Amino acid sequence: MRIDGTAYRTIWPEADGILTVIDQTRLPHEFALVRLTNLNEAAHAIRAMLVRGAPLIGATAAYGVALALRADASDAGLERACITLLETRPTAVNLRWALERMRARLAPLPESQRLAAADAEAASIADEDVAINRAIGGHGAALIHAAAGRKAPGGPVNVLTHCNAGWLATVDWGTALAPVYAAFEQGIPLHVWVDETRPRNQGASLTAWELKQHGVPHTVIADNVGGHLMQHGKVDLCIVGTDRTTAAGDVCNKIGTYLKALAAHDNGVPFYVGLPSPTIDWTIADGLRNIPIEERDGREVSELTGRTADGRIETVRVTPDGSPVANYAFDVTPARLVTGLITERGVCAATREGLLGLFPERA
Amino acid sequence: MRIDGTAYRTIWPEADGILTVIDQTRLPHEFALVRLTNLNEAAHAIRAMLVRGAPLIGATAAYGVALALRADASDAGLERACITLLETRPTAVNLRWALERMRARLAPLPESQRLAAADAEAASIADEDVAINRAIGGHGAALIHAAAGRKAPGGPVNVLTHCNAGWLATVDWGTALAPVYAAFEQGIPLHVWVDETRPRNQGASLTAWELKQHGVPHTVIADNVGGHLMQHGKVDLCIVGTDRTTAAGDVCNKIGTYLKALAAHDNGVPFYVGLPSPTIDWTIADGLRNIPIEERDGREVSELTGRTADGRIETVRVTPDGSPVANYAFDVTPARLVTGLITERGVCAATREGLLGLFPERA
Repeated sequence: MRIDGTAYRTIWPEADGILTVIDQTRLPHEFALVRLTNLNEAAHAIRAMLVRGAPLIGATAAYGVALALRADASDAGLERACITLLETRPTAVNLRWALERMRARLAPLPESQRLAAADAEAASIADEDVAINRAIGGHGAALIHAAAGRKAPGGPVNVLTHCNAGWLATVDWGTALAPVYAAFEQGIPLHVWVDETRPRNQGASLTAWELKQHGVPHTVIADNVGGHLMQHGKVDLCIVGTDRTTAAGDVCNKIGTYLKALAAHDNGVPFYVGLPSPTIDWTIADGLRNIPIEERDGREVSELTGRTADGRIETVRVTPDGSPVANYAFDVTPARLVTGLITERGVCAATREGLLGLFPERA
Repeated sequence: MRIDGTAYRTIWPEADGILTVIDQTRLPHEFALVRLTNLNEAAHAIRAMLVRGAPLIGATAAYGVALALRADASDAGLERACITLLETRPTAVNLRWALERMRARLAPLPESQRLAAADAEAASIADEDVAINRAIGGHGAALIHAAAGRKAPGGPVNVLTHCNAGWLATVDWGTALAPVYAAFEQGIPLHVWVDETRPRNQGASLTAWELKQHGVPHTVIADNVGGHLMQHGKVDLCIVGTDRTTAAGDVCNKIGTYLKALAAHDNGVPFYVGLPSPTIDWTIADGLRNIPIEERDGREVSELTGRTADGRIETVRVTPDGSPVANYAFDVTPARLVTGLITERGVCAATREGLLGLFPERA
């Protein structure tokens, strides 16, 4: 997608293998590219969340292996690269998947062939992510197009999204936002309501930034607002991402997603989830019972970082000293509240039957 | 209620008529008492939101009239006091009500009797607010007591609240929190989930502070969290306040209340509203159609004020430059989602029949 008029991916290698990424911790106030020149720098970029979002983490790990092999393509070097990168975010499913794929491809090869193969495999992983997301975009754009057809001519389709499942979370296009970008490219008038997404403000700081850079009309709102907007007909459809989807269509996504799904259901607003099929967990059905919810540092709630009027970056505390804070990172939206799942193979009902219709090899 | 072990009201006059209030704009980071010595200072305290909350605004206006009459008890002085105070917050219903009551009581009197009557009438308005809230507390505490009886012995009753309808918003006790304080005084084990309440953070900054000062166990959460807690049985009942309740039981309260009511309904959690009867608008029934929702300055969303680690108060921006922001202040929770209304006369269904059962004089 575009930044200041120029098309970017979130990560790309130079000819010498050195990686460039966007330092997402400095958004939205500063757009800074960072060069990753060795294994440790690649690991740091994931650990310190310069890059975040499951697909982008996976791609960064794959490119990181290729970078590491430039210094040491031995069995020990490959092993060290995989272990170092895996330890950066132990619970990230895509990270493990990308590293296992790299290891499986590279370990059988003689050292002399590993570097070229690593470059090619990492590029494949990145390109496949882009292709998956572009496909999600195409299928989702059709839903936005249909929503436009149900409206008075000329008025924009109002899409509400939560958190950041945009191109910054992937190599390009995004998951929940891929349909928005695809519809925008097709010239469908649209406008995005961006939940700020407390406590980490990924909506206010990342989604708003990437939509603005690409030129997509949008408005930032507090997370409390979406229900009111839906009551008054100001949302035509919701599209969110997911960290994990069960085989029965339950959706685990950023905390607060469930509340928006309830409001959509109460007001007859379609509620869609954009997901690449690797995020489907075919081993579980009941998301409420079977998905443990991460509890994170309470300081993410009690403290907040932003830019002062004179340009300094400051962190301020908003809660009273001594008041306890709880910080649940995700919630589960039951499948009954989900209108449809937008996958790279098409849109299906959020049911076992719906998913198996698109992915019959899982039956 | 108590601050650091000492019982306070939010406003009180000295013998010479000079008012003391808590500067709520400096909470939670600083507890500062401010003396209001004349009409203009009283008006400023309301306008600049040193005092906020409908009942406290009304009481401040009443005491402000008494203060003004010390300088000028003539007809012109009384009129100027009422006009000056009314202009501070033009849409505040309690403000107009308190000023009209003061004017009606004082205008017929000779100048020489007005000051004593003003002091007495302002004290009555304040005392009546306390009595109403104490009664709400008693009726609501019975609901908390009943919830305790449905739980395993020893575990606290978990109450979720949104925004600040605590004693800081009234003269004492609060509305939504009066039941919490009353149950706490009765020794019922309880714990309060405090929604931070974006964008103005009244939960994180005011509700958490007053609960902590009074010693009530509580935990601050992002507004996104309540649904997840209810899905997992961690909320026994919700109690919120209201700015305006329709004759049919629709509840207009701080933005985001509707989302919590939906989650409560979806999970079988009782959802109560604490309200003094003056906030019932007997002239309207359909809250969604008939209550206009105030849109406020977007900077309340895009900027946030707090305390830095080294003790400075700073305001920081969290959204990208140039991203539009919308800021709706309230939403309407339909009566069908409200389990009951806790008034000073008792608890009733959120229906016309329920309200008329308690307030038959309105039939």
